Amino acid sequence: MRATQVAIIGAGPSGLLLGQLLHKAGIDNVILERQTGDYVLGRIRAGILEQVTVNLMDEAGVGRRLHAEGIVHHAIELVFKGERHPIEVDRLTGGKVVTAYGQTELTRDLMEARAAAGLETVYEAADVSLHDFDSARPVVRWRKDGRQHELQCDFIAGCDGFHGVSRATVKDKVTEYEKVYPFGWLGVLADVPPVSPHAIVYGNSERGFSLCSMRSLTRSRYYVQCPLDDKVEDWSDERFWDELRRRLDPELAQKIVTGPSIEKSIAPLRSFVAEPMRFGRLFLAGDAAHIVPPTGAKGLNLAASDVKYLSSAFVEHYRERSAAGLDHYSDRALHRVWKAERFSWWLTSLMHRFPDMGAFNQKLQEAELEYLVHSQAASTALAENYVGLPL
Amino acid sequence: MRATQVAIIGAGPSGLLLGQLLHKAGIDNVILERQTGDYVLGRIRAGILEQVTVNLMDEAGVGRRLHAEGIVHHAIELVFKGERHPIEVDRLTGGKVVTAYGQTELTRDLMEARAAAGLETVYEAADVSLHDFDSARPVVRWRKDGRQHELQCDFIAGCDGFHGVSRATVKDKVTEYEKVYPFGWLGVLADVPPVSPHAIVYGNSERGFSLCSMRSLTRSRYYVQCPLDDKVEDWSDERFWDELRRRLDPELAQKIVTGPSIEKSIAPLRSFVAEPMRFGRLFLAGDAAHIVPPTGAKGLNLAASDVKYLSSAFVEHYRERSAAGLDHYSDRALHRVWKAERFSWWLTSLMHRFPDMGAFNQKLQEAELEYLVHSQAASTALAENYVGLPL
Repeated sequence: MRATQVAIIGAGPSGLLLGQLLHKAGIDNVILERQTGDYVLGRIRAGILEQVTVNLMDEAGVGRRLHAEGIVHHAIELVFKGERHPIEVDRLTGGKVVTAYGQTELTRDLMEARAAAGLETVYEAADVSLHDFDSARPVVRWRKDGRQHELQCDFIAGCDGFHGVSRATVKDKVTEYEKVYPFGWLGVLADVPPVSPHAIVYGNSERGFSLCSMRSLTRSRYYVQCPLDDKVEDWSDERFWDELRRRLDPELAQKIVTGPSIEKSIAPLRSFVAEPMRFGRLFLAGDAAHIVPPTGAKGLNLAASDVKYLSSAFVEHYRERSAAGLDHYSDRALHRVWKAERFSWWLTSLMHRFPDMGAFNQKLQEAELEYLVHSQAASTALAENYVGLPL
Repeated sequence: MRATQVAIIGAGPSGLLLGQLLHKAGIDNVILERQTGDYVLGRIRAGILEQVTVNLMDEAGVGRRLHAEGIVHHAIELVFKGERHPIEVDRLTGGKVVTAYGQTELTRDLMEARAAAGLETVYEAADVSLHDFDSARPVVRWRKDGRQHELQCDFIAGCDGFHGVSRATVKDKVTEYEKVYPFGWLGVLADVPPVSPHAIVYGNSERGFSLCSMRSLTRSRYYVQCPLDDKVEDWSDERFWDELRRRLDPELAQKIVTGPSIEKSIAPLRSFVAEPMRFGRLFLAGDAAHIVPPTGAKGLNLAASDVKYLSSAFVEHYRERSAAGLDHYSDRALHRVWKAERFSWWLTSLMHRFPDMGAFNQKLQEAELEYLVHSQAASTALAENYVGLPL
């Protein structure tokens, strides 16, 4: 039977980043991915990286293009009651920033580095199943090209997202925590210059939430809060741009450069955590274990910190023969996960209009926004979460 | 018809403080109170004064005993998961503190000063009614000793609390915002030394909220969260002390000095705001216009800041012939009110167990407590609200 040290399930950013970090540490690994590489690259996702994530890309030796093309953001902007309020995260956190760099680009960098290093990724691996991870020799099985395959390993890393096989395999052993929000995000990707090239703009208006973000200086990503039962077909490009403008302050609204959408979709918002994140020799990381609503852009960054903890734990195991990192992985990761879950929930609650929020809660939301932008302490609390709490 | 410049409805701390400040500025005023003076003094209420409130007592010339007997608190304490976490509000806010001094004592000081100055307070004024406050000459009528009385005035100040006649008189013109909480506070007053003589202790345990506060070094005020339908008769002193101990960390629990309760009651928790706070020549102040849940001790302090704004406005009117203060009173007061409403709601949400909160929200609450006590920024945000936001 073929063997490796770590079998990684999923070739999204978590799995690829973990593979690269393990490779750098001399730890053999194989990635199994249900989809094709092109499919993985086609998924439009977040694009704001915490410094922790940028550092990890450097550690993995794949930070070159990110540093060349990523756009550093020193601030975010809150827009409410038709007025703009910058939150200078750089100044408030003593010099910390975030970097705008599309998840697609980050994934591409990792895929290319993996290919260049000659590391094995099995795409279109069907019916992946995980076995014997309660023993010292776990086994992963899958089907490809009409044949059954089997891989023996020391550990399995479940990096296969919310709908992957990893968590499903242990579903009787996890405690799940979940919150579903009563609205969705309608997102448009367009090859137009961003309205605010050096800051993400979070808007709260009577018409609902809006977000102006970017992938590069020529590619923008905009969102508006919409009812969950809206259909993409209801939203012509024209209606979208119109609605976005109406949710911003007049100055920003006038500056928006519109263009044909190259992607348009409606995504629900969900908070989800599965505990624990370790089951014998199976470890969950990233979306396989937790989901945050996109407000605050914590999803990819949480996956990266999981991967940081997990790769360090594997290195400790192989180099120092210490189980401490593996034993503490779940607690360490969940500690950071819950703080990010709290932040994402808070920012979502603060910036959206909830159908059932009522007049009192609406006034509280306005008072909190007002307090937030005028209090150095409250602005700093926002900023330190936004750039990422310490590992 | 008898006349005065300002007719003040209600001889609680708001009305008495306003009367004293106006008297100092040479503005004639009469206070009408439905109850007896002894009844007013018998009401057990809050006991934590912001610096703004202390300053106002000084300005009114009634701060002597407060400074002699009030206990300055430099910190508060949060207890959760059986551990104590001090929040050093003094250090975090650059030297601001709060003072523990019972509302009963503050009321007594104001009553005595009013009597000493020979100012008129009509106690047991029945069926008070407010008239013509849309005109330049409002009139107040009441019944006492079997006779009908009438007082003409320039302005009416409604300082008569949530159940008073002032807001009731304009009930068709106010917008009301309200939130009711699904639990109450069972409070015990006892002549025992406080467990924590220099800090209020806020506890969040699996069994619910608890609060250790004090009126003096020999009189303590303790609370435990209880179901709204609990009856005081269900709670023997023994059961109360027992329950309180079980909600604290072991060290504090052991230190609690118990004794017979001299008052025991169950109070519901409510957030309430009525807008606006001005109707022609009638002005609402304090509980007549807004209620906060007691968590954070903002009720009396908000009443004091209303009174500060209102007395300044009257002084501007009489001395400078300017209507600006009166015209801005409602907006200025409400601006501060809503921030305090937000803080009180937030601290209530953070420290209580809600019957319907669910597992996800429970985990968020734990993550927020954990974040709060370890983040300087978040601790500072708590501290600056606790000592009172700037006027």
